[in-house]
Amino acid sequence: MIISVGTDLVSIARFKQAMIRTDGFLKRVFTPDELKLENGEPRAAISLAGIFAAKESIAKALGAPDGLSWQDCQIKYADSGRPEVKVTGRIAELASLKGITNWHLSISHDAELAIAFVVAEGK
Amino acid sequence: MIISVGTDLVSIARFKQAMIRTDGFLKRVFTPDELKLENGEPRAAISLAGIFAAKESIAKALGAPDGLSWQDCQIKYADSGRPEVKVTGRIAELASLKGITNWHLSISHDAELAIAFVVAEGK
Amino acid sequence: MIISVGTDLVSIARFKQAMIRTDGFLKRVFTPDELKLENGEPRAAISLAGIFAAKESIAKALGAPDGLSWQDCQIKYADSGRPEVKVTGRIAELASLKGITNWHLSISHDAELAIAFVVAEGK
Repeated sequence: MIISVGTDLVSIARFKQAMIRTDGFLKRVFTPDELKLENGEPRAAISLAGIFAAKESIAKALGAPDGLSWQDCQIKYADSGRPEVKVTGRIAELASLKGITNWHLSISHDAELAIAFVVAEGK
Repeated sequence: MIISVGTDLVSIARFKQAMIRTDGFLKRVFTPDELKLENGEPRAAISLAGIFAAKESIAKALGAPDGLSWQDCQIKYADSGRPEVKVTGRIAELASLKGITNWHLSISHDAELAIAFVVAEGK
Repeated sequence: MIISVGTDLVSIARFKQAMIRTDGFLKRVFTPDELKLENGEPRAAISLAGIFAAKESIAKALGAPDGLSWQDCQIKYADSGRPEVKVTGRIAELASLKGITNWHLSISHDAELAIAFVVAEGK
């Protein structure tokens, strides 16, 4: 049973501007684990834009209520490269309230755009 | 159970050209409620392009048969900003014939593109 | 029950470059049936880019393991224009292993981008 879906399109150029111009943007939106790769190197802007699109998609699938924390929705890449969703805090509460038991997420980007889409599944 | 899915990508620039160049375009594609916001102001082109992408996605999920009326598929935004689908007339008949009971829709746009995707669910 | 989802965004310009610059690209990625239209004419690059995005989406939904053959995932357009997925060989084996029984696919493109998304459904 599908509870809801969400999609988000992110301009890489505008995302990079937000990174540069908005104080504390990266630390507010991303968790420490998201900001770096497995090898400890910083994650590239294009990949962060994809994670940003994923978080927006998930917020939309929850009805985009006010006051969500970006940190309560973490995207982690499995070894295969498949993105996985881990929700905590208020986002986990909301998801549970809506009966969501599984998040199915996919992310893609080319040079200029990142896109994510998510299907929230329940029982 | 998923009956079908649909997605559509719309260039905002080309959508604006259609708005300007094609007589009667807006009144043919959108219902009076879609053309204005809650406060009575006209809906911006970028938001109309998103609704257009949603209608195209839904037509694709139905197999894009000839002779559908754009007016038989209305997109309404809930207070939360979540888009909801209401089908009437021939589109409602086709959806019923295919066993579709729920439409799960999400829309996104940046400055240049609008995208929609829909999952048609049945029982 | 949803097993997984996949999406892919393809720049038409970069796809055309790959067509020109990469020896054997078309014959490696597409089956003979995909390369031509029903009437025998060659399929346009923009439409091939959409099929490419579809194949990438399906690979992502399978976890993008190494060693998949592009030829084991064929996209065929029904008379209605709806794209259908036919998997063979190792891709069919993997899909079966994951319990995937249905592929729900949609493709869209404008002048510059092609996008596909797929929902892999099981029982």
